[in-house]
Amino acid sequence: MITPRTPSGTLELLPPEQVAFQRMLDAIRAGYERFGFLPVETPVFERSDVLLTKTGGETERQVYFVQSTGALEKADGPAYPELALRFDLTVPLARYVAEHEHQLTFPFRRYQMQRVYRGERPQRGRFREFYQCDVDIIGKDELSVRHDAECPAVIHAIFTDLAIGPFTIQVNNRKLLRGFYEDLGIVDADQQAAVLREVDKLDKRGEDYLRSTLTGDGFGLAEEVVEQILAFVQVRSTGHDDALTRLAQVEAGSRGSASLAAGIAELREVLSLVRALGVPESDYCLNFSIARGLDYYTGTVYETTLDEHPEIGSICSGGRYDNLAGQYTRSRLPGVGISIGLSRLFWQLREAGLLDASTGESTVQVLVPQVDGELLGEQLALASQLRHGGINTEAVLDGGKLGKQLRYADRAGIRFVALLGSQEVADGTVTIKDLRRQDQFTVPRDEVVSALRVELAQPEVPGD
Amino acid sequence: MITPRTPSGTLELLPPEQVAFQRMLDAIRAGYERFGFLPVETPVFERSDVLLTKTGGETERQVYFVQSTGALEKADGPAYPELALRFDLTVPLARYVAEHEHQLTFPFRRYQMQRVYRGERPQRGRFREFYQCDVDIIGKDELSVRHDAECPAVIHAIFTDLAIGPFTIQVNNRKLLRGFYEDLGIVDADQQAAVLREVDKLDKRGEDYLRSTLTGDGFGLAEEVVEQILAFVQVRSTGHDDALTRLAQVEAGSRGSASLAAGIAELREVLSLVRALGVPESDYCLNFSIARGLDYYTGTVYETTLDEHPEIGSICSGGRYDNLAGQYTRSRLPGVGISIGLSRLFWQLREAGLLDASTGESTVQVLVPQVDGELLGEQLALASQLRHGGINTEAVLDGGKLGKQLRYADRAGIRFVALLGSQEVADGTVTIKDLRRQDQFTVPRDEVVSALRVELAQPEVPGD
Repeated sequence: MITPRTPSGTLELLPPEQVAFQRMLDAIRAGYERFGFLPVETPVFERSDVLLTKTGGETERQVYFVQSTGALEKADGPAYPELALRFDLTVPLARYVAEHEHQLTFPFRRYQMQRVYRGERPQRGRFREFYQCDVDIIGKDELSVRHDAECPAVIHAIFTDLAIGPFTIQVNNRKLLRGFYEDLGIVDADQQAAVLREVDKLDKRGEDYLRSTLTGDGFGLAEEVVEQILAFVQVRSTGHDDALTRLAQVEAGSRGSASLAAGIAELREVLSLVRALGVPESDYCLNFSIARGLDYYTGTVYETTLDEHPEIGSICSGGRYDNLAGQYTRSRLPGVGISIGLSRLFWQLREAGLLDASTGESTVQVLVPQVDGELLGEQLALASQLRHGGINTEAVLDGGKLGKQLRYADRAGIRFVALLGSQEVADGTVTIKDLRRQDQFTVPRDEVVSALRVELAQPEVPGD
Repeated sequence: MITPRTPSGTLELLPPEQVAFQRMLDAIRAGYERFGFLPVETPVFERSDVLLTKTGGETERQVYFVQSTGALEKADGPAYPELALRFDLTVPLARYVAEHEHQLTFPFRRYQMQRVYRGERPQRGRFREFYQCDVDIIGKDELSVRHDAECPAVIHAIFTDLAIGPFTIQVNNRKLLRGFYEDLGIVDADQQAAVLREVDKLDKRGEDYLRSTLTGDGFGLAEEVVEQILAFVQVRSTGHDDALTRLAQVEAGSRGSASLAAGIAELREVLSLVRALGVPESDYCLNFSIARGLDYYTGTVYETTLDEHPEIGSICSGGRYDNLAGQYTRSRLPGVGISIGLSRLFWQLREAGLLDASTGESTVQVLVPQVDGELLGEQLALASQLRHGGINTEAVLDGGKLGKQLRYADRAGIRFVALLGSQEVADGTVTIKDLRRQDQFTVPRDEVVSALRVELAQPEVPGD
């Protein structure tokens, strides 16, 4: 006998949680589709030579290689297996767009919601298998910065639908960052990266650590420069006009960096279109501390945080990149995109006790219990009637006491029970019990679908 | 520069086909949920020792093993890698139910729609990665045969929704098969299996081959016995009453096999409940030639075929098994289930030219072109209005000639275009073009969502 065990580092859910998880996946997909993005799915594995063109040490060490038994047994096989599991959805997107370039229309607007794999050391909240829900817009040769406004708009629609509390989409721009540091005399890209790494520790280590580090031997920045950096990275705009004011202030303080000017112009356009797309100004802001992947993003960058749970960190991040697939094609493919790491987000929401509202409610809407075994045919006909009416219905086929069947429905999160006893059959009626409202009523048999549809459209608790 | 290539043996789709594929996945999921099944997802890999407890040569040779770079580089690692990709959804279901047994309610009704992996030699129509869409009902200790009627019912609902043409769900029973051969004196299980393997070749090799083989040296059956087998396996009932008559005939011819009697009783109950569940009698039949996995299924077995495309073979198969997870738990877990191999089905439908109706129609319902760059704000506000109204909307942000934008919508399968020029802005209206019906009309701006909803609810071509 083998002990059944889920592999470590995976998020396997029991049905009530899986239902809640699936509802989140559905809401994200509906949001992406509402904004006109098209679905793409790619194989879970890629050819190793295709997958591992760009990656450096850390990623490659975490890659899962795949090989069939036959390949394993061949002593003279290739040094590395032929296939490897995708570690993100960006490399597969690059491969997909480069491979199918001449069959796609640009700008290519795609969403992709699949699992990715990283051979991480297992620890709480770190997963070896997790969902990413990505959306990207890829241009050919060029892509207007206007598209950078679509990411906050679609993310706003989705997180509003998910109803996991107030959130803020924080926007910055890598050109603005680069220009700001250039103006301070920090021109070298490596030095900029080193400063940004230290600045990233501000929340954890505090201002004094940053002052002493940046003025210390390794960096040797003037105190005044460090104060400028500290003031800059703490900027969070408090509304649309305030964001424009902050940009004007940075512009006024510039010593002429072209990169800074370009970043400011892009942010102005992006913010104005984010507003035009109907995102309330309370839900987005400028945050000059956001840098993201230092060698990947080149323009707009985004992070999204839950206002009441900043400890969760960014729940959705992304940005603009200059060239998606330089390793696969000579075509220049600039793009902008954003990603929701749903497995991690779901786990964090559960840890924070924020899933209560959505979990517990089954996909099953109605239980048709077995009141009387003699009436099995009638009971199944009722179940069929409900299903034809589009209502998710479970029919009890094993019998047992009615009380036990009702308790099962209640525990399983099934809201309605449709009872058909001999009285109901004689009268041509059905008795409906609403287990949430602890209510019951009897309807003519031919009105049961419409009656339940009305009930299902109403909130579970009066006044909700 | 690396050539971007999809790994062989995978079904990667361009967006229009992916949309059609996703619609099929959605229809299957909706069908499973309408019948009260709950979603389960398991990790793509299982621990190798857990996955490979039961399997013999063929399956094990096709298993894909998974290991991280670190494990690959360890010379003294385990002989077999720790993880392996699932090759079906049945073993993960067994592991899931055994592992979470005390947190599940039985009968446990779950559906699972995920990809599975087999290291097959690549060839046309054979996939190394493919979707399976499984539904199973698992009992604890026992499970009434009534549940065997739910599989044909849910499959009937789903294939009706998929609208891929008329189909027949063919039902048989392993106990009946076993009893029939027992009555003929073929009692030994291995001999029965050998006969069934030959009978399976009937369609390809013909009756004469079967006669000579079964009466030949290897089998040595009497000619009369072979004629009885030939008559038996060619039984296809032509309606509900005919099915009952066929069963009565088999019963009358029995020499007293208890297994045969049990199989007949089960089939009678299953057929009567399939009818009670509203499946039209034209859509199911008895087919005594169906055997399925010889050592796995123990009672009812199912296959489903497209009436107009028998060459495609079974598009959905399954059956009843005695004990799901004997390798993981001492609990007896009988079950019944059915599986749709969607990747292969999709590929076959595409090859047979049966996908035309569903492909080509985008998930994007409305394009809002850029008529006048000066009106960008108005254009985006209109796009937001449509999206808030639940309409999937793409807004053109890059401009270009209007004719080109309309041609894009047409080619992309986007049915409606919502035009907002200076005249419309002045009038407070929107002009809607229906590219399918080649029709256009103008509506007040605040009625655009309701007008489009009415249009979207109507068929694309009048009279459809």
